[in-house]
Amino acid sequence: MLIMDVGSTKRDVVDAARRVLREGNLGSFVPAHPITGKEVAGVEHADADLYLDKQVILTPIEHTQTKQLKMAIDIWQALGCRVQQMSPEAHDAAFAAVSHLPHLLAFALMNAISGQPQGQDFLALAGPGFRDFTRIAASDPRVWRDILLANREELLTQSKIFQAHLQTLELMLTNNKSKALEELIVQASSTRSQWQMNQPQE
Amino acid sequence: MLIMDVGSTKRDVVDAARRVLREGNLGSFVPAHPITGKEVAGVEHADADLYLDKQVILTPIEHTQTKQLKMAIDIWQALGCRVQQMSPEAHDAAFAAVSHLPHLLAFALMNAISGQPQGQDFLALAGPGFRDFTRIAASDPRVWRDILLANREELLTQSKIFQAHLQTLELMLTNNKSKALEELIVQASSTRSQWQMNQPQE
Repeated sequence: MLIMDVGSTKRDVVDAARRVLREGNLGSFVPAHPITGKEVAGVEHADADLYLDKQVILTPIEHTQTKQLKMAIDIWQALGCRVQQMSPEAHDAAFAAVSHLPHLLAFALMNAISGQPQGQDFLALAGPGFRDFTRIAASDPRVWRDILLANREELLTQSKIFQAHLQTLELMLTNNKSKALEELIVQASSTRSQWQMNQPQE
Repeated sequence: MLIMDVGSTKRDVVDAARRVLREGNLGSFVPAHPITGKEVAGVEHADADLYLDKQVILTPIEHTQTKQLKMAIDIWQALGCRVQQMSPEAHDAAFAAVSHLPHLLAFALMNAISGQPQGQDFLALAGPGFRDFTRIAASDPRVWRDILLANREELLTQSKIFQAHLQTLELMLTNNKSKALEELIVQASSTRSQWQMNQPQE
């Protein structure tokens, strides 16, 4: 028997597995998180290539049996995924930063705009940059309520770090610090330009 | 003679035109902002379809002559754009919300992640949601330094509104308010799902 999940947080599902699975079955559980998805839900949006060339993170624990771990790796590789392993804690810290926080920011931005009297006029003018930036805001609300709550400690930590950087940028704007502002944008722009999806950096 | 610009802010270029153009030439100036672009710069990224089916905003002022305005409309329509007119002030308020703020947030997020000791490990795990959310962070630093500074008052106003909404979401997380959190995400998700690019709402 192999038990897997495909959730976006791993510490909570490992905790739940420890609570409800018998000792023998706990060894059959391989926590998994495929790094792919869509902002639309439902079987009508099924996509046979969804997992192709994507990463999947497995977070085995001390009880996980070698045989089940090998089975899990084989299944994901057969679907076209590249498999990585890490601890549930390392997983949740990383995805707070690169997935859960961007969702939180996208939700906040949509509500910030639509909550203004001119919000609909503003939205009517938005272009391709806005389209891509806010795509994840359309994600399934109940799924993301659960993800954000399940990883709220790491997420709140990341949100505070983000706000400190945002406020630094605001300070450059307020004080008209053109040179310092440019340096911060260069840093952001070069980091993003050099980033490539699915290129693990050793 | 027709004078146009294609800048992302309009009040500053109108102010500059008032300062430097003679009274007669000021009437030939039609401020323009095509709502399209790429995060990559340079002629090697030229795209003949860049303007196809996109919006262009013209912000004529009291001096703008009817003939030049008509010429500008004809040029943009010939490129495949749909033309809208509004005041420079209305333009800058709207684009602070739907363009300049998303760029500021994307820059802040990239710097927040890359500034952490584990930043490179985090980035190596990022997937398609992160890719789209941060695409605009790769934009040209000098161009965006100038845009953000030119519209900094409206931008700082929008950034404050955004942070208030972000902090409301954080409060729901901190206090484990599942129902209230879900309602805010539903609001964001439905606003984004209903939004379509280039669908002006009357």
